[in-house]
Amino acid sequence: MNESGRVEAFSDGIFAIAITLLVLQLTVVNPSQVTTSKDAWSQLGHLWTAYDAYLVSFLVIGIMWLNHHTVFSYVARVDRGLLVINLVLLLVVAALPFPTALVSDWLNQPGPAEVAVAVFSCFMVVHALAFQSLWWWLTRTGHLFDRRVDVEAARQTRRRFALGTVVYPILVGLSFVSPVLTLGLHFALAVYYAFNQLPIPLKPDASTDDEGHVSL
Amino acid sequence: MNESGRVEAFSDGIFAIAITLLVLQLTVVNPSQVTTSKDAWSQLGHLWTAYDAYLVSFLVIGIMWLNHHTVFSYVARVDRGLLVINLVLLLVVAALPFPTALVSDWLNQPGPAEVAVAVFSCFMVVHALAFQSLWWWLTRTGHLFDRRVDVEAARQTRRRFALGTVVYPILVGLSFVSPVLTLGLHFALAVYYAFNQLPIPLKPDASTDDEGHVSL
Amino acid sequence: MNESGRVEAFSDGIFAIAITLLVLQLTVVNPSQVTTSKDAWSQLGHLWTAYDAYLVSFLVIGIMWLNHHTVFSYVARVDRGLLVINLVLLLVVAALPFPTALVSDWLNQPGPAEVAVAVFSCFMVVHALAFQSLWWWLTRTGHLFDRRVDVEAARQTRRRFALGTVVYPILVGLSFVSPVLTLGLHFALAVYYAFNQLPIPLKPDASTDDEGHVSL
Amino acid sequence: MNESGRVEAFSDGIFAIAITLLVLQLTVVNPSQVTTSKDAWSQLGHLWTAYDAYLVSFLVIGIMWLNHHTVFSYVARVDRGLLVINLVLLLVVAALPFPTALVSDWLNQPGPAEVAVAVFSCFMVVHALAFQSLWWWLTRTGHLFDRRVDVEAARQTRRRFALGTVVYPILVGLSFVSPVLTLGLHFALAVYYAFNQLPIPLKPDASTDDEGHVSL
Repeated sequence: MNESGRVEAFSDGIFAIAITLLVLQLTVVNPSQVTTSKDAWSQLGHLWTAYDAYLVSFLVIGIMWLNHHTVFSYVARVDRGLLVINLVLLLVVAALPFPTALVSDWLNQPGPAEVAVAVFSCFMVVHALAFQSLWWWLTRTGHLFDRRVDVEAARQTRRRFALGTVVYPILVGLSFVSPVLTLGLHFALAVYYAFNQLPIPLKPDASTDDEGHVSL
Repeated sequence: MNESGRVEAFSDGIFAIAITLLVLQLTVVNPSQVTTSKDAWSQLGHLWTAYDAYLVSFLVIGIMWLNHHTVFSYVARVDRGLLVINLVLLLVVAALPFPTALVSDWLNQPGPAEVAVAVFSCFMVVHALAFQSLWWWLTRTGHLFDRRVDVEAARQTRRRFALGTVVYPILVGLSFVSPVLTLGLHFALAVYYAFNQLPIPLKPDASTDDEGHVSL
Repeated sequence: MNESGRVEAFSDGIFAIAITLLVLQLTVVNPSQVTTSKDAWSQLGHLWTAYDAYLVSFLVIGIMWLNHHTVFSYVARVDRGLLVINLVLLLVVAALPFPTALVSDWLNQPGPAEVAVAVFSCFMVVHALAFQSLWWWLTRTGHLFDRRVDVEAARQTRRRFALGTVVYPILVGLSFVSPVLTLGLHFALAVYYAFNQLPIPLKPDASTDDEGHVSL
Repeated sequence: MNESGRVEAFSDGIFAIAITLLVLQLTVVNPSQVTTSKDAWSQLGHLWTAYDAYLVSFLVIGIMWLNHHTVFSYVARVDRGLLVINLVLLLVVAALPFPTALVSDWLNQPGPAEVAVAVFSCFMVVHALAFQSLWWWLTRTGHLFDRRVDVEAARQTRRRFALGTVVYPILVGLSFVSPVLTLGLHFALAVYYAFNQLPIPLKPDASTDDEGHVSL
């Protein structure tokens, strides 16, 4: 396993654990007080805020992983700067169950809902900044990329990669207007990123290779 | 590590965490109120619903992993469609501790037991649909498979792979007749799948290879 | 990654998660009621049962991993029987935080302590049986081993591998005589296994290889 | 995967899980009692001890991983001694959420804060001793290293590697003078280690290699 491989494995571990810990929010509070079918359905109905928070965060972390995975599949070497930026990025990922829990707890109360979704949006801002920094660090010299990447063209994509750092601060503000709508926009953005992603520019002769790598 | 390898590693992480988090359900509620051996045995006896839920879900997730593992051992390339379908499949796996907790909490109360097992069965329906979609996506063109797979024959198995999408909806209905029996059937189905699995059709000359792959 | 590699990765994940979840037992019950240094030390002192349970279980799972790891480093192929036995073995590993919690909760109360340590010992019995089954399955034909293993000699070690299946049932009985002593014996046995392990017999010309494998 | 690779994978799993479990400390105690925006901000403000504990521990475990990762990238073979020392090191890592929770719970109360930070510092002492032992074990004969390492020069670094074993005991004492300052020093030390690390001495002709390894 090369250097990059072990960083990916550690990162994947954190992504996988954070995304799976989200399920701990899906909890019926006093299960023993439920005695009839009607009680049970009612309890499950009250959890709608938890389902919303779960779905949005699951998708968001899943897409974060997809993007991380795509970028690192072109990274052949790591240096200490990359490791530190990656650690900050992982901090946001690992901490995401916290704002998710806030949303899950407070989405049905107008005031706290605004705070919860605003905090969630702030986490997304920090994540966008960290991901942007990662991309800047990689495209600065390009010597960490593997041979296939067209470094000059990759550097040109810096501005377009910055999209998230513009959109997410707006969502912080929008949280105080409509928390539910803002949460919906986080979901929509994640779906958008799932299907549309900036391709990493490859050299003409590197578009295909026989090691099973594909440009997503 | 090729593309497929890292998707497998991330998926394996989520399977492993979800299956291990199930243990958090096995909890004696007020351990400090237990003062005699008899109390202790009694408390452990009351947990029978938790043991049942644990065993069924452990086996179910274990078999889900086995099937996922078998299919992906023939996948050489991934595309964005496969990644998205896989993410939906992982969502069900990661969320399974939730219906497991419901079964664990409510199995000893007639009304809520029906609801809990019905919700559990619904998760299995969604899982069966996601796994079926994965198989359809892979066999559509077959270009994601590695060389050993007989794509034409694999496409023929689509209907037989759909077994789960027929059986699990029936179990949703059966939950309202007998929750305990339905849970037992989930266990029996998982045992069945552990020992009987549709083989992935290989080309005649690909049945053995020296890289340690075996057709399970 | 060959078949065996992915089974190891999934198993390692479960071992790693189970061993790390043990820390959730180390909890001060009402932290906000602690207001002085003396209170704090006193609370930490009361946790001695939790420390004992933690240390024993951490070591036990660690050694289980070591043994699993050693055996699988000689496995080149997997079949469905091996996967199913391995799943049962992982069930015991993943569930071990449960008896650990019992010991942690009840070790300071005579009656419940006996029950807790007896349950813990029963888990070790099942683990010993599962590990023994794994070894029998592997040595039955030996075709799953890689080239280095002397299958005939490996089959001879079956009886000596069965040591655990004899010792652990005795510890179940001893739990009702002295729970603390029994827990100490579990610790001592794990230390013993850490330094003394049955070597897997290799063919004369396979004792060294240049792939980094060593006979532990 | 060679021997060393699987030990790394298991260790990485424990690092990743321990670092991600830290988020479970970030919990609003009675979320349903929060009804206004002001309540919500106030609750989030009260969690400052939890944020501090989280950030310090996240960085500390992250750097522990970085160092572990750097050392093991030069390890080609493992023996039982290395495995046992590594297990002790992992015990400290896996248990670190416990002192983190103490700091999180008690940092705002003078007396208990001293105890919490002193316990945290003790964990760092044990970690430094374990890491030091690992380094001594590796440099004793050097036969576990891969070819690139200059064993003689590596042995010379033993004393400088011992820095942590001197500094952390001082921080144990300092905890009783100023817990918050001591926590800040743990953070500063981790940042220091993130950017300054003893390089592992390589043979003149091994400073670069084409397997993607870099000397960090």
